Amino acid sequence: MSFSSADHVWMAQALRLAEYGLYTTTPNPRVGCVVVKNSQVVGSGWHRRAGEPHAEIHALRAAGPLASGATVYVTLEPCSHQGRTPPCTRALIDAGVSCVIIAMLDPNSKVNGEGIRQLRAAGIVVQTGLLSAEAQALNIGFITRMQLGRPWVRMKIAASLDGKTALRNGQSKWITGEAARRDAHQWRARSCAILTGIGTILSDDAQLNVRHVETSRQPVRVVLDTSLGLPLQAKILAEEGGQTWVFTTTTDQRKIQSLQQAGADVMVVPEQAGKVDLYAVMTSLAKLEINELLIEAGATLNGALAACGLVDEMILYLAPMLLGDQARGMLALGELIHLSDRIELQNLDWRQVGKDMRLMATLAKRQV
Amino acid sequence: MSFSSADHVWMAQALRLAEYGLYTTTPNPRVGCVVVKNSQVVGSGWHRRAGEPHAEIHALRAAGPLASGATVYVTLEPCSHQGRTPPCTRALIDAGVSCVIIAMLDPNSKVNGEGIRQLRAAGIVVQTGLLSAEAQALNIGFITRMQLGRPWVRMKIAASLDGKTALRNGQSKWITGEAARRDAHQWRARSCAILTGIGTILSDDAQLNVRHVETSRQPVRVVLDTSLGLPLQAKILAEEGGQTWVFTTTTDQRKIQSLQQAGADVMVVPEQAGKVDLYAVMTSLAKLEINELLIEAGATLNGALAACGLVDEMILYLAPMLLGDQARGMLALGELIHLSDRIELQNLDWRQVGKDMRLMATLAKRQV
Repeated sequence: MSFSSADHVWMAQALRLAEYGLYTTTPNPRVGCVVVKNSQVVGSGWHRRAGEPHAEIHALRAAGPLASGATVYVTLEPCSHQGRTPPCTRALIDAGVSCVIIAMLDPNSKVNGEGIRQLRAAGIVVQTGLLSAEAQALNIGFITRMQLGRPWVRMKIAASLDGKTALRNGQSKWITGEAARRDAHQWRARSCAILTGIGTILSDDAQLNVRHVETSRQPVRVVLDTSLGLPLQAKILAEEGGQTWVFTTTTDQRKIQSLQQAGADVMVVPEQAGKVDLYAVMTSLAKLEINELLIEAGATLNGALAACGLVDEMILYLAPMLLGDQARGMLALGELIHLSDRIELQNLDWRQVGKDMRLMATLAKRQV
Repeated sequence: MSFSSADHVWMAQALRLAEYGLYTTTPNPRVGCVVVKNSQVVGSGWHRRAGEPHAEIHALRAAGPLASGATVYVTLEPCSHQGRTPPCTRALIDAGVSCVIIAMLDPNSKVNGEGIRQLRAAGIVVQTGLLSAEAQALNIGFITRMQLGRPWVRMKIAASLDGKTALRNGQSKWITGEAARRDAHQWRARSCAILTGIGTILSDDAQLNVRHVETSRQPVRVVLDTSLGLPLQAKILAEEGGQTWVFTTTTDQRKIQSLQQAGADVMVVPEQAGKVDLYAVMTSLAKLEINELLIEAGATLNGALAACGLVDEMILYLAPMLLGDQARGMLALGELIHLSDRIELQNLDWRQVGKDMRLMATLAKRQV
């Protein structure tokens, strides 16, 4: 299958439209659509939020009767099933489009190829795979949830050049600069949930909300709290917008009820080595439709997640300072005996953000 | 004073010539010289090594009688005193040059402006300050030794992204890749000496020589060894080429003599808090004509030097891996109580070297 340069332009435009949904479509994927007739865009659209029309429907409505005989560029395979909204394949067939070009198949097992089959059965020419890597990157969380039954897990760490996230006494305001903090809030805003450990709440009274960028939606705040030590006056419970989910192994109903009254949802999961079972947490989060999960935790939880292979990607902000060996580290991994036990990073993307350096990379050893 | 674009070109050429002496001129500065007549280079030269002719002499010899009436571009003020070779001012005057353009004054108190005065007294037009920042960077060690009575101190550290230089058991081969190691050897090759602590020798049996790049000269190897625990069979003593200097507070003649017989020079310096006094070491190294000193040590010595303000510049290679909190750190600084006690880095220069990232930066708090 080969695509023309014009095909690339229209699909890129559809991807750019999809990106408008970055902070809002969750738990749905971000999707964009462009309808082209006689080398002219006659309609375009993007999915805004779950329950509202899909990108294709917006684009077809904008095109009106011009959709007949048109070519449709869509970043994800059109849905073939009745969900919160009717199937998009039906709408495309009814509009009489002649060709549909798709960036990637829908990893949702309810669709996965069925959308394409329905379109082809109706005599529509269908091509797939145009800018598929870009389309996958945009919905990496949705894809991971569909394929692995867990969220895409990003770990954000802000540290000094010697790998320290705070002084021994906990002081960490501010190691990285304002530009890095704003950048980090963009990653918060696109996440479905932000996860931390009870240690970080007790030490920093972290809010874990999006402040430095505009968003109409606050991610879910998730706290791992084995024995339910979360104080009822913690800021994370007082936040307006978004929900707070507490994962615990404790079944103490009195504690659970107090937290529920303070506004939290409490989820009891199995224990693993005296802590909440991290795999069980991830499975629960996927069932709760969390696509992209951002970890903002201390060295203990960071290390435990990485050691379990539950970290897909790391966002590391390095500030141009040294804090010395007694400051707090990034990652408690236990003692490595051989260098081959290291955690390797791949797909490195280094970028200067204000006075700090940002590294984005994927982890080589992951539980998939 | 304003310079033409042609002036910049000729001085840049002189600087490039000076760089040929990067690995060899020590303890002298690196100097280049270009003689220009009627917009043509009629002679050029650079200083190769101490005791051999200065750059100006090479350039004047190449120009021959064409030097008469020419303009001379030289990266450092011509010497005005009889050293190992006769004064260059004399040679320039005798050659009948009409103009001398100088990048920077000689910080050597035996010269410092006197060369310019002599040239002007002979009726030669002298201009200074062209590309002076570049000229200073080239001889930062020489300048620091002349002005502060200590070497320019670079600290090289190779670490994982979480700031770890070795596993707890000492394993560190290899954290960074081959390109970074070769790059590091270029910094070794231009250094007058490489300094480490006895801990690094005992743990790694480090050779501290230049292997990955070609050089005709090996830097001096310096070991800080408070109680003279250096094993007589240490590789650092068996090295061919270069010298090994051991700084100690011990006056035990038997130990000193064994080390001397093994080829080392032993220097006794005052004690400070049970260790060799680091300021005394630096003063001694300056007296021994060490311009650029490269530190390749462990966390204890690294931290002590940085805390004393005795580190001017850091070369940090970051390898894309994580080793965890139990691995060895970069810098033992004691506990910092306030973030304002941090060591800040300035003039950051980030560069990818193979699979690793290199940061070069200067330290904000330095003893000057």
